[in-house]
Amino acid sequence: MRVLGVDPGLTRCGIGVVDGVAGRPLRMLGVGVIRTPADSPVAERLVLIEQGMEQWLDEHRPEYVAVERVFSQHNVRTVMGTAQASAVAMLCAARRGLPVALHTPSEVKAAVTGSGRADKAQVGAMVTRLLRLAAPPKPADAADALALAICHIWRAPATNRLQQAVAAHRAPPVRVPRGTA
Amino acid sequence: MRVLGVDPGLTRCGIGVVDGVAGRPLRMLGVGVIRTPADSPVAERLVLIEQGMEQWLDEHRPEYVAVERVFSQHNVRTVMGTAQASAVAMLCAARRGLPVALHTPSEVKAAVTGSGRADKAQVGAMVTRLLRLAAPPKPADAADALALAICHIWRAPATNRLQQAVAAHRAPPVRVPRGTA
Repeated sequence: MRVLGVDPGLTRCGIGVVDGVAGRPLRMLGVGVIRTPADSPVAERLVLIEQGMEQWLDEHRPEYVAVERVFSQHNVRTVMGTAQASAVAMLCAARRGLPVALHTPSEVKAAVTGSGRADKAQVGAMVTRLLRLAAPPKPADAADALALAICHIWRAPATNRLQQAVAAHRAPPVRVPRGTA
Repeated sequence: MRVLGVDPGLTRCGIGVVDGVAGRPLRMLGVGVIRTPADSPVAERLVLIEQGMEQWLDEHRPEYVAVERVFSQHNVRTVMGTAQASAVAMLCAARRGLPVALHTPSEVKAAVTGSGRADKAQVGAMVTRLLRLAAPPKPADAADALALAICHIWRAPATNRLQQAVAAHRAPPVRVPRGTA
């Protein structure tokens, strides 16, 4: 599966594309950052993020998009911008019909490092090792976007089993008695 | 000037279009609400808001879009959705090249009722009177969107004067001495 991870932000929106399946070596297809000028009006910055997202989606044709779930316990001003940037990322993916998954920062850290409280350096080091890179991707937003994509690939089997269980619970399979068909 | 006001929200996004200039009677061209199902994934709800915005912009061709400025002192969960819905509204306007203005709720209330602390009923009553409607627009999100558009029309002359003053201060006009041209 090919996943495009997004670490949303107005000033720097991290993007990372990873290909692979759980339990097999992963491959990085691309990493980068969409930047917008801090002194531009928010509306124009959102247009730049949309244009950047479209380029990444066109170039890498991911099957899934994983976006960091935004919480509001952080700095109030930053969170609003992060929520707005994440909205544009989700919009670009969903209107192409791509499934959008949201993962919390601690889910991502736990998936990649084994600890939900890992720091940026640990996440960067594990991303570097898992993708067999020569050096940690910079800036941190780019490494976080790769971590999101890896998290999604590794969680997908569990998520799929959960969704199947929920679906099975909602609509039990119709059993056709033997010999009637 | 023709202004499309947006009271952003994921569940109900109020839209109101008003035509007029400060100091003259105003005219309502349209009012409504873009609704999205609360049980749908956020990404899909943002696509529905985009589609709704595009329809309103296509139909009414406003020259300005005024969006309520989102603050985070309210309910945390609601604010994230409001920020995301406002991002889509701003994006749709800005990528058409339309100027996007943000007004705070108290600016809107003060413009329409004379008090920044007016309640929903007062805002609805003043919108009804100013636009010479038979009854207050419902739901409240629709009335708020009209109030935003009215606020923008009435504040525009002051805003323009301010912008001109700032521009003049930044780049003083070049004076060509007489007789040299």
